[in-house]
Amino acid sequence: MKSASDRWSRVFIVSVSPRVHEGEWHIKRTVGERVNVTADIIVDGHDQLCAGLYVTRLGGATEEIRMTPTHNDEYTGSFVTQTPGLYTYHVRAWIDRYGSWQQQYGRRFHADMPEAELKIELLDGAALLKEYAVNAHLDARDQLLAFAKRYTGGDIQAPLEEESLQLALANDPQKGAVQSATLTVEVDRKLAAFAAWYEFFPRSSANAAGMHGTFDDAALHLGRIRDLGFDIVYLPPIHPIGTTFRKGKDNHPKANPNEPGSPWAIGSPDGGHTSVHKELGGLPAFDRFVKKAGKLGLEVALDIAFQCSPDHPWVKEHPEWFRKRADNSIRYAENPPKKYQDVYPLNFECADWRALWEELKNVFEFWIKRGIRVFRVDNPHTKPLAFWTWCLGRLRTKHPDLIFLAEAFTRPKIMYTLAKLGFNNSYTYFTWRNTKEEITEYLRELTSTNVAEYFRPSFWPNTPDILHEYLVSGGRPAHIIRYVLAATLSPVYGVYGPPYEHILAEKHPDREEYANNEKYEIRTWNWNDPNSLQSLFQAMNRIRKNNAALQELRNLQFLNIQNPLMLAYWKNSGTNSIICIVSLDPFQVQEGELHLPLEALNLPQAAPFQMLDLLGGERYIWQGGTHSIRVDPHIMPAKIFQVLRRVRTEADFDYFV
Amino acid sequence: MKSASDRWSRVFIVSVSPRVHEGEWHIKRTVGERVNVTADIIVDGHDQLCAGLYVTRLGGATEEIRMTPTHNDEYTGSFVTQTPGLYTYHVRAWIDRYGSWQQQYGRRFHADMPEAELKIELLDGAALLKEYAVNAHLDARDQLLAFAKRYTGGDIQAPLEEESLQLALANDPQKGAVQSATLTVEVDRKLAAFAAWYEFFPRSSANAAGMHGTFDDAALHLGRIRDLGFDIVYLPPIHPIGTTFRKGKDNHPKANPNEPGSPWAIGSPDGGHTSVHKELGGLPAFDRFVKKAGKLGLEVALDIAFQCSPDHPWVKEHPEWFRKRADNSIRYAENPPKKYQDVYPLNFECADWRALWEELKNVFEFWIKRGIRVFRVDNPHTKPLAFWTWCLGRLRTKHPDLIFLAEAFTRPKIMYTLAKLGFNNSYTYFTWRNTKEEITEYLRELTSTNVAEYFRPSFWPNTPDILHEYLVSGGRPAHIIRYVLAATLSPVYGVYGPPYEHILAEKHPDREEYANNEKYEIRTWNWNDPNSLQSLFQAMNRIRKNNAALQELRNLQFLNIQNPLMLAYWKNSGTNSIICIVSLDPFQVQEGELHLPLEALNLPQAAPFQMLDLLGGERYIWQGGTHSIRVDPHIMPAKIFQVLRRVRTEADFDYFV
Repeated sequence: MKSASDRWSRVFIVSVSPRVHEGEWHIKRTVGERVNVTADIIVDGHDQLCAGLYVTRLGGATEEIRMTPTHNDEYTGSFVTQTPGLYTYHVRAWIDRYGSWQQQYGRRFHADMPEAELKIELLDGAALLKEYAVNAHLDARDQLLAFAKRYTGGDIQAPLEEESLQLALANDPQKGAVQSATLTVEVDRKLAAFAAWYEFFPRSSANAAGMHGTFDDAALHLGRIRDLGFDIVYLPPIHPIGTTFRKGKDNHPKANPNEPGSPWAIGSPDGGHTSVHKELGGLPAFDRFVKKAGKLGLEVALDIAFQCSPDHPWVKEHPEWFRKRADNSIRYAENPPKKYQDVYPLNFECADWRALWEELKNVFEFWIKRGIRVFRVDNPHTKPLAFWTWCLGRLRTKHPDLIFLAEAFTRPKIMYTLAKLGFNNSYTYFTWRNTKEEITEYLRELTSTNVAEYFRPSFWPNTPDILHEYLVSGGRPAHIIRYVLAATLSPVYGVYGPPYEHILAEKHPDREEYANNEKYEIRTWNWNDPNSLQSLFQAMNRIRKNNAALQELRNLQFLNIQNPLMLAYWKNSGTNSIICIVSLDPFQVQEGELHLPLEALNLPQAAPFQMLDLLGGERYIWQGGTHSIRVDPHIMPAKIFQVLRRVRTEADFDYFV
Repeated sequence: MKSASDRWSRVFIVSVSPRVHEGEWHIKRTVGERVNVTADIIVDGHDQLCAGLYVTRLGGATEEIRMTPTHNDEYTGSFVTQTPGLYTYHVRAWIDRYGSWQQQYGRRFHADMPEAELKIELLDGAALLKEYAVNAHLDARDQLLAFAKRYTGGDIQAPLEEESLQLALANDPQKGAVQSATLTVEVDRKLAAFAAWYEFFPRSSANAAGMHGTFDDAALHLGRIRDLGFDIVYLPPIHPIGTTFRKGKDNHPKANPNEPGSPWAIGSPDGGHTSVHKELGGLPAFDRFVKKAGKLGLEVALDIAFQCSPDHPWVKEHPEWFRKRADNSIRYAENPPKKYQDVYPLNFECADWRALWEELKNVFEFWIKRGIRVFRVDNPHTKPLAFWTWCLGRLRTKHPDLIFLAEAFTRPKIMYTLAKLGFNNSYTYFTWRNTKEEITEYLRELTSTNVAEYFRPSFWPNTPDILHEYLVSGGRPAHIIRYVLAATLSPVYGVYGPPYEHILAEKHPDREEYANNEKYEIRTWNWNDPNSLQSLFQAMNRIRKNNAALQELRNLQFLNIQNPLMLAYWKNSGTNSIICIVSLDPFQVQEGELHLPLEALNLPQAAPFQMLDLLGGERYIWQGGTHSIRVDPHIMPAKIFQVLRRVRTEADFDYFV
């Protein structure tokens, strides 16, 4: 459009949204979700425009959706995604020449223009219809020409008939049409956007204390995890563990002979990334575990950590895949003065990088063949972004149902770029956002900016690597608070289950992580502790499944509650509305005045409505926008209200989650 | 980067700013202005990056500016524009391999790594320096190799010398460097970003009432306009005016024989867009006018309205350039039921469009040859955007000192797109933004969003087409308020002078414009009215020229003043700080408490500072952030404070604007 070439158009597509970086990356959506597309389209003067949205499922046919003008030169159209995979969409726009003529004609007609004048104008309309008829199919052609004939015959009423407009719209040759850049949407299955993850170490699942659990032991816990309402069972690496420089208790540089080592020190003479640790029962036990999970409706997520112990088979078979020092020894991981002699990083830039990259992709393919569809990727930010773009792109094209969670607790721009290039879920800074201001600001960034188009947060109150001081000092109420926040603020959340549910939050003296860390030793859990948070897990996951509002990310809106230690927010989806009130103080009773913007929430101004606390079970009849809320952290530091817009009759009162 | 081709890099340029739509359009700057470029650049792992900013003046050499990391993976660099015209810039980034090695080495060294180990690491550093030496120029090569030799010789202190780092930085072969898209900046001369325009009708400049003034009469007013401090004299169209369907007083459909017609009905048998109206003295008088203006340091802006009266020579010479009706008559402008029979629009889509477009461009070229460099373009939004892109692009390439002001009071996206495609200045909605909320919101959009990168507002409190009710009812105080707002909020502003300075704000009964509109008749002004606003114009233009803060757009910051009818804002440039307080109430005295964020404004917390009201001439000694301000609209509804950061000594007190 920048030079007076033979092709130029009066129509100008200023921008199309949603998009990420002018279409360089995909936006993310889930199956069955409506994608609302808005285009800003302008033309000089006062002509009317037509715009179409063209959607193609990769390899499929193109669907055309007519866009509707809203206001301020915006046109909207939408489509519903059907299956996982990549869709492309673009916008096309052209001048509605007949429509513009017809509108002008109507104004002339109603302004009582002399009939002779109108008859002259009619000839222009006839000429347009004849032009439109040229490539119209037979029926339409005849109808268009019939109208044209009435116009040339001087029938000044004819153009006022709605039918001419519809005919012309359907047969417009779209002269001078322009097209936007092609944008893409990566469509995931629902589990990528709404899921509860449960992490545990299978080796700690034996009945007898200190014994190394197997996958068959671990499988006995699957029913319990399913009953707690989780969707995904996530396992730390399951591969053979190296012995060279094996780490002892709490990352001690030397392990005693009986210590099991860290599962992230991957590889031994028994095998590497496509083997299962012998003490876990090997591949057959793993297969049984996955099968049982499947029967229970649970998915198994594997932890893929692309690093090797010095005993990994690749070290011998492909020494060229590692960095060497000048003395020809392999370079271990290091952050001087810290040394990680039990871990050899891979050299993604080695001369043989093509073979290495293929082999790493094959690791995923291996587990995909064994039924795994969900992967938690360890430290993706220490591997080239170009590798992930390539690897995830290839895998997703072949298996559109894959879900990758990026474990990248790194700087924001790297975190976001990993999401753009293909990770479906991402760990976040949630763990370090504990005050009202921190949470509000961070959630606004994640839910109300363009970030929400491509970055799907997964909120974890704890992990084997991170135990925040808030949990350490706040005890049970703090655990409830952070769990409720994670599960209601973000539709995807996870918990490193055993220590969390038993509120065993003893901190390592030097590091922001658990003491007696399960990464380096086998732990034994009292699975039947009546004081555990298991019933909270169960209630929360049930509430999430029953309330569509909690299954979306971009619907979050913070509400005004007059207490800096209390948080209030609203989520709505269709007719389902949830208001969460969470006290951030794990120690003292807090009280705050909540101000509901009744009109914005579609709540009655002058009639009562019902608030049902799905956690506590109480019902309240409210009227008006101001309410005082009191929360005792030692009873329950949070309220999850379902809003019932009218006070129901007695018969409705059996409704309960 | 999206496939594992042979070329991939670990470095990733996430984004570069400033830019407009990923570089589709130019950003705008002025000569001598510093362009600050920020790039978000990431790499996996912990390697250090180098980034360079490469700037090319069209047709000139490329300058490299080393970028500096700031925080959060951002790198900044800047350049100062030298001459008007188009500059391109892009960012290039690569891994600082030697720097990364050296940093790691330093940490090893200071962590007391055994000497034998350090000597192994030294060999890696030596290998890098030898690689860098290959393409280094002779001197540097020798120095690099000398360092390498010391490393291979086991000199463990050598890498700690700063010199090795500087040498390596300067000779880095930049392996795996990546490059951003090329962005562009259109550099204008200063007048495009800071100018005061004065509009008047030369035909109303005769001494005797009712007489048709000539350019020689008009030239007598140039000295006065210069003395008032204006930079640009803007004239409505100066071409022969058609007689067919000529409009009479106040747009009456029929003119009396003695009525002069509207200058926008361009063209008569005397000529068209490249002729000067006979009664104005023709081309020779115009040339004398332009010459005199030039001598006085004033520029003349012409109004280019691409439309024709039925008497325009093109109608006969190029009937194919106009739209025809079916009866072969030329279609006049129309907005049914309204008819504009005195105006024929041009058909930019006609078969002969190339010749038409060339001819229109030649209109500009004609006046450029006669010394005109500033054009106000009438209704550009009714002509194809593609035409302007082409026409302004060609003209600007040849004459980088041209300034085009878009008179497009149209919908926001068209207005903004006209600025993107090349208009240097734009009329705005300022006239219709009168309340505190309206002004604050609109100015935030114009000054603090990406709009400010390409859209340069020109604020006009009035035009021959628009007389806002606020001026009609508010009288003299309203005129002062709107003038001060225009001249201080926007560095480019203009005023349709004569009726404004004489506060003749009689409104047409049906339309938002002046009664006895000068567009249709010759007016006579009392140029020596002692009650006029001429002294305000003079003071304001002097204040603007003396205070750099008022010459910038993006430095605007609103301040908190506790009165909904009072506006307070701050502008700063270098050491020059201006605080404006404007009452928006033209009727009553207003008082408000001003809260200055002292730290943000770099004002002392616990020491007095001086406020000098440049309009009223009073001085105040202030201390602290809270001050009560009282404004009487019948004395002066605005205060323009220059902030003097310390209370000066007696000797400084002769400072006055």
